[in-house]
Amino acid sequence: MQDFADRLSETARDVEALLGDLLAEKPQPGEIARPARLLAAMRHAMLGGGKRLRPALTLEVARLFGRADAGVMRVAAAIECLHGYSLVHDDLPSMDDDDIRRGRPTVHKAFDEATAILCGDALQTLAFDIIAAPETDDDALVRAELVLGLARASGLGGMAGGQMLDLEAESSRLGEAATLEMQAMKTGALIRFSCEAGAILGRADAEACRRIRRYGEIIGLAFQLADDLLDATATPEALGKATAKDQARGKATLVALYGIQETRARLANLVAEAEGLLAPFGPAAAPLAEAARFVALRES
Amino acid sequence: MQDFADRLSETARDVEALLGDLLAEKPQPGEIARPARLLAAMRHAMLGGGKRLRPALTLEVARLFGRADAGVMRVAAAIECLHGYSLVHDDLPSMDDDDIRRGRPTVHKAFDEATAILCGDALQTLAFDIIAAPETDDDALVRAELVLGLARASGLGGMAGGQMLDLEAESSRLGEAATLEMQAMKTGALIRFSCEAGAILGRADAEACRRIRRYGEIIGLAFQLADDLLDATATPEALGKATAKDQARGKATLVALYGIQETRARLANLVAEAEGLLAPFGPAAAPLAEAARFVALRES
Repeated sequence: MQDFADRLSETARDVEALLGDLLAEKPQPGEIARPARLLAAMRHAMLGGGKRLRPALTLEVARLFGRADAGVMRVAAAIECLHGYSLVHDDLPSMDDDDIRRGRPTVHKAFDEATAILCGDALQTLAFDIIAAPETDDDALVRAELVLGLARASGLGGMAGGQMLDLEAESSRLGEAATLEMQAMKTGALIRFSCEAGAILGRADAEACRRIRRYGEIIGLAFQLADDLLDATATPEALGKATAKDQARGKATLVALYGIQETRARLANLVAEAEGLLAPFGPAAAPLAEAARFVALRES
Repeated sequence: MQDFADRLSETARDVEALLGDLLAEKPQPGEIARPARLLAAMRHAMLGGGKRLRPALTLEVARLFGRADAGVMRVAAAIECLHGYSLVHDDLPSMDDDDIRRGRPTVHKAFDEATAILCGDALQTLAFDIIAAPETDDDALVRAELVLGLARASGLGGMAGGQMLDLEAESSRLGEAATLEMQAMKTGALIRFSCEAGAILGRADAEACRRIRRYGEIIGLAFQLADDLLDATATPEALGKATAKDQARGKATLVALYGIQETRARLANLVAEAEGLLAPFGPAAAPLAEAARFVALRES
C-alpha cells in the first residue's frame, strides 16, 4: 500500500486537474460569460499547489464506504474551493495582510484588492455550484445535504465566525476554552466536514457517520496543534515560511498555554483516539489512521 | 387588489421578520457558535430596510403557480442575503468606497473593513444554507436546483463577474454590447433568478419556466435602465441619495449611449414585452405585469 504522503501527492495532482477544468474559460449553462481577469485570479488562487489535505480526507473516507468516482472528486474540489476562498480573503491587507502564499504573491498582490475580494467571493459560490450540480451525485438529497453541511461548517457558525474570533483575539488574549472554540470554528469545522462529506457520499449509517464526524474533529484539532507546534519550534528553513508568527502577533495558541511537551502528549492522545474510533471499520480504515498520524506528527 | 407598491411594503415587512429570525443569536444544528460581532454586522446589513424587490418577485411568481408558503419566503430571504452580501462588498473602500447605504453607515464604516468582508462572506454562505435546508421544500431536487441556479446567477459567470467588469469599465469606456453584458451579469442575473426561483418552487412546466426566465431578464434590464435614468434626471432630494454619480465616475451607462428620450421608449417596449410574455397566464399574472410597470416607470 502507498503511504499517506504518496496518496496525498496523487490526490493533489487529480484535484488540481479537476480544478483546472472547473476553471476553464467556457461558461457553464446558466452563466453569461467568464470575465478573464476574475478567472485568472481564481486560477492563480486555486492552481498554485497546496497540500490538498481536505480533498484527500474526503476521498479516503468515501473510499472506506466503497465510493471512489468522479462525484467524490468533485466534492473534494468544491471543499478545496471553499478553503481557497478563505485563504484569499484571510490574506487581504485588512485581515492578516500577507504578501506571499505558497511561495507566490497572494491574489491581492498579483492582481489588486478588489479583484481578490471578488475572487474569494466567486470561489465560495463555485464551491456550492459544484456540489449542487447533478454530476456530483444521482441523489439530490445527498447534494442538498452536502450543501447544507458545507454551509454550516463555513459560515457565521463555522469558518467565517472563527476568523472573526481570531481577529478579535489579536487585541484580547483568549483562554483555553475560547481558543479551542475559535480554532474549532476557523479550521476545525471545514476539516471535520471534509471527512463527513465522504461519509455522506458513501451512504454511511448513523453510527458510522458519528464516528467519522468525531474522527474529523480530532483531525482538525491535531492539525491546528501541529501547526502551532511547528510555528513555535521549526526553523523557517525546515518549514519554508516564517515561524514564530503567532507569538509575534500576540495570537492565542494552545502551545503557549500547554507548553511543548504537553502539546506533544496531547497530539499522541488524539492519534490514539482516532485509532480507537476507526477500529470497528477494520483494516480498511488503515489509511485514515495513517492520515491521523500524518497530520499530528508532521514536521513541515 | 392591493397595488404592487403596497404588496412590496408587505413583503418587506415579512422578509425582514424572517431575516431577523434567521439571524438570531442561537446557533443552528451543525454550527459551533455565532460570534456576536459578526452577527451584529450581518444584522446591520440585512435589517436596515431596503425595497426587497427581489423577494417580492420570487413571491409573486410562486403565487402565480399556486405556492405561497413559508418555503417560498425562505427562498426570497436567501436571495436577499445574497444581494445583501454583494452590497456590503461593493461598498468596501477598494470597490465603490461608499460610506452611506440607505441613510445608515455602510458595514465597514459602522464596524471595520475586515468585519465587512467576513459579513459579506457569511451572508453568501447563509443564502445557500437557507435554500439547502429541508424546511425550504420537501423535494431535495427542488432545493438542489435552486442552489445551482443561485450559484450560476451570482458567481464568476453572473453577479461577481459583472462587478469585475464594472470595475474594469471605470478605466475603459464600454460600448453598448459590453455594457449590456456587464449589467446583465452584475444586476440582471440575480433579478432574473429571483423570478425563476418562484417558477422552480411552483413546479412550473418548461414553457412557463422559459417565459418567466425571459420576464426576469426584462425586469433586470428595466431595473438597470430606470436606475441609470434616475441617476441622470432625478434631483438628489427626490431620490434621497446623490445623483449623477455615474457620470462623475465616468461609468458606462446606457442612458449616456441612448439619450433620455430613447431610454424612455426602450423602457416602454420592455413593459410591453413583459405583458406579452405574461398574457398566456391570464388575469392571475396581473401582479407581475404591474411589477414590470413599477420597475420600469418608478420615480425613485
